Amino acid sequence: MASSKQKGGKGLVQVFTGNGKGKTTAALGTILRAAGHGLRIFIVFFLKGDYTYGEYDSLTKLPNVTLVSFGLRRLINRDNVDPEDIKQAKLALETAREAALNGKYDLVVLDEVNVAIEFGLIELDDVVELVKQKPGKVELILTGRYADDRLIEMADLVTEMVNIKHPFEKGISARKGIEY
Amino acid sequence: MASSKQKGGKGLVQVFTGNGKGKTTAALGTILRAAGHGLRIFIVFFLKGDYTYGEYDSLTKLPNVTLVSFGLRRLINRDNVDPEDIKQAKLALETAREAALNGKYDLVVLDEVNVAIEFGLIELDDVVELVKQKPGKVELILTGRYADDRLIEMADLVTEMVNIKHPFEKGISARKGIEY
Repeated sequence: MASSKQKGGKGLVQVFTGNGKGKTTAALGTILRAAGHGLRIFIVFFLKGDYTYGEYDSLTKLPNVTLVSFGLRRLINRDNVDPEDIKQAKLALETAREAALNGKYDLVVLDEVNVAIEFGLIELDDVVELVKQKPGKVELILTGRYADDRLIEMADLVTEMVNIKHPFEKGISARKGIEY
Repeated sequence: MASSKQKGGKGLVQVFTGNGKGKTTAALGTILRAAGHGLRIFIVFFLKGDYTYGEYDSLTKLPNVTLVSFGLRRLINRDNVDPEDIKQAKLALETAREAALNGKYDLVVLDEVNVAIEFGLIELDDVVELVKQKPGKVELILTGRYADDRLIEMADLVTEMVNIKHPFEKGISARKGIEY
């Protein structure tokens, strides 16, 4: 990581994608680790709505972590997208771009950005442009299923979370404190 | 999750395995989220040594998180295991068992336990026994490559982190604040 703490480092582009659990969770873990090293962190939730998730309370306890959340408090119907969903996602991308380019942050997380692209809420080209424009020292993390091949091609580190077994398949629903 | 906060829930067994980045990181993210909901968390690092990782500082800032670290501050040679490595790993397992069974924690993380088994530091049977004995309300997370099929079989939720692209392949070394 090319913060002032480490000469010669380089901020990479990381992608967490796939159908398994652990994509946003791994981004949160990366933030926890980075905050422990004094890095300045910005996370944009593209699709979380204004629901109070457990991670919000915890993130706000960490030093140098700024979080912003966009999206409405409901599921998006990808076959009938609400104009408000598009507006929110575009605002999220603008906010992420500002954070990545303004020199105030070492690590910028675009949570669920891949889904926002896949659902047609934002343009792939705009995200590609952001990745190209990012200063060398800034680390970017892009999460969400459906990561586009162009972003995978540009990324330095790509992990696919593959669902081997999931409790929802057994009829267990999402549990507060664990899944959200 | 079957903490006192949620009736009728059930603590599951989660496994994060595979060759990709994000296993420990996802466990840390789960902790961050769970701490935000007031759950009581215990994490045992089986193989981290006493090195001060970024996550330690951050974890200690979260409420109700207890962490214990075992293992020597060096890599293990799996073909020539030091008796001290075995002793440390056995202590780690004992500590994890105590935390899982004593009713004081809602979430117990056994970080890198799969590697400890694979390297012959602890017995698979002992971990299987721990999983069997755990109280219904306790959530267990087992991380590390090489998850044994028996543990995968017993688990409720299994995610394989698959390395699609990794910067170490390009000759970039581990970066403070991001990888450790």
